[in-house]
Amino acid sequence: MRVQNACVPHDFHLNDILAASQRLGDRVRRTPLLDSAMLDARAGCRLLVKADSLQRTGSFKFRGALNKLLALDPQARERGVLAFSSGNHGHAVAAAARMLGCPAVIVLPDTAPQVKVDNCRWWGAEIVLYDPHRQDREVVGRELAQPRGLTLVPPFDDLDIMAGQGTCGLEICEQLSGLAVVPDAVLVACSGGGLASGVFTAVKAHHPQARCIVVEPVGGEKMARSLAVGTPQRNASVPATLMDAIIGPVAGAKPLEVLRRLGTDALQVSDEQVLPAMATLFDTLKLAVEPGGAAPLAAVLSNPREFAGKSVVVVCSGGNVDDHVFTRALASRDLARS
Amino acid sequence: MRVQNACVPHDFHLNDILAASQRLGDRVRRTPLLDSAMLDARAGCRLLVKADSLQRTGSFKFRGALNKLLALDPQARERGVLAFSSGNHGHAVAAAARMLGCPAVIVLPDTAPQVKVDNCRWWGAEIVLYDPHRQDREVVGRELAQPRGLTLVPPFDDLDIMAGQGTCGLEICEQLSGLAVVPDAVLVACSGGGLASGVFTAVKAHHPQARCIVVEPVGGEKMARSLAVGTPQRNASVPATLMDAIIGPVAGAKPLEVLRRLGTDALQVSDEQVLPAMATLFDTLKLAVEPGGAAPLAAVLSNPREFAGKSVVVVCSGGNVDDHVFTRALASRDLARS
Repeated sequence: MRVQNACVPHDFHLNDILAASQRLGDRVRRTPLLDSAMLDARAGCRLLVKADSLQRTGSFKFRGALNKLLALDPQARERGVLAFSSGNHGHAVAAAARMLGCPAVIVLPDTAPQVKVDNCRWWGAEIVLYDPHRQDREVVGRELAQPRGLTLVPPFDDLDIMAGQGTCGLEICEQLSGLAVVPDAVLVACSGGGLASGVFTAVKAHHPQARCIVVEPVGGEKMARSLAVGTPQRNASVPATLMDAIIGPVAGAKPLEVLRRLGTDALQVSDEQVLPAMATLFDTLKLAVEPGGAAPLAAVLSNPREFAGKSVVVVCSGGNVDDHVFTRALASRDLARS
Repeated sequence: MRVQNACVPHDFHLNDILAASQRLGDRVRRTPLLDSAMLDARAGCRLLVKADSLQRTGSFKFRGALNKLLALDPQARERGVLAFSSGNHGHAVAAAARMLGCPAVIVLPDTAPQVKVDNCRWWGAEIVLYDPHRQDREVVGRELAQPRGLTLVPPFDDLDIMAGQGTCGLEICEQLSGLAVVPDAVLVACSGGGLASGVFTAVKAHHPQARCIVVEPVGGEKMARSLAVGTPQRNASVPATLMDAIIGPVAGAKPLEVLRRLGTDALQVSDEQVLPAMATLFDTLKLAVEPGGAAPLAAVLSNPREFAGKSVVVVCSGGNVDDHVFTRALASRDLARS
């Protein structure tokens, strides 16, 4: 039996992701797995880029959100849902709720990029802002949800969310198989661990030898520490980074358990490494990717010896970036044009 | 019988495109057909965006170039090929030649964006620059090709090139069918007409009622005038526009014939309309698109009454854009954020 609401050992396997994939059908976009000879030359390895920035709402979060909403009973959907989010999750829940005709309340930090706030509002969701330096978003969320009977849609610590995000990994495996590529390593940006746990579960089921690596901002290595000690760790403070999508306060218990079982490694990247990675994705693949979404590529480009000659998958998990940050990314790199 | 080298009536039909598609196989990327509820709201119609900026080398040109090279006899491929190009075609020929292990000489205008020059060089092609205000690129190209026995790969006025570009239209039709969408209109940026003739041939074979529209820069409406008078017209001068991909001097004779037979319409757009369209693609679909590639969307957004409530396909044909132009695009729009 699946124990959904306790942080105790539980099952989470490929079958959960296959079920999510069936449930979602073509409501979720099958995003391309891209490559580029120029990018390979720059990275010194064979790179496969999963462009989930092209997912509906501009990030992978739509996969988990829609899977969660589809798994609710119809009465709960009618009462509505609530999400607390650093932005992309809220946007995804708002869009998924609109798609299924269910009310949504989105709780956002007042530090979120304006584009993310506006995106949630656009889908017709009710917006509540909070101060991430003073308030715990989960408490804020629960206080809003209870009187209205709203279902809380957690951002990552939930098996339906993890299964939905895992469909990204399932697509990667199918696409790798079409290319006859066996991956040596798969890198995913990580905050709570929902995407990483889902993607790596799919990847390890198909490629047990693949090295699975979560990528976090320098100064916000809560999952690296959680993997080391075995229990969910918190960031001591909100890290000062442009990677706003991966600065949540705490690692997810269920994702952590999955990531530990799969033998996950961790790498950290700085803004100074992420900005040129964004420019590289613009140059070579014509993708607009947000700082957190470019973190995996930044990790590969800044650890060339670790990945030299290997087949490496990086997930570009989101593309919701403000103009001034994107412009900084373009200005960040020496064009290296002869 | 196919008459390939004369500007006389000839056959060009869906079968030519189907053959190109078979020949190309998975060497050409099947680019996604994207949509966005936010984009639909902004445009006032149902928009389907063919993201051929995600094609190998960052533009649709790779399709035609590779098809042409694959159609050559092996001896000709060994001697090598030559292309004259405003940039994307040269880049595509260079990459296709590298893929097939054949020598390539690329003749570029000295006004081409630096990124396009560098891209050709990167693939190992020999680069020759010319002055588009003083020299005819076709003459320059022929003078280089003859002594070495190089095969000229023309940018558009060639049935193999047109058939290769047509695979973009074939994919659109397959993707529309998967979405159960019947298009009211399809818009393609146009210089010589290679892409438009290929895409519209595929579209009209599947959707005879669809309106086919070429989009050109204001001041460079050579195809609009060619369609009106029935013979290939030249631009009086190089138009002053950021849409460098569609400022070639003359409309193609073979494409023109196809476009006339299909009953093609024409629209013009200005840089002031194209820049915000680029920003819109960045905002809603996370795509980096070059000015010429955003021209079809600009035409829809600036003619709202013409497309209101319709199902409209726009081809985003390329993504090779210099930083400063992309930054101008982002700065061009009022964010319209409440």
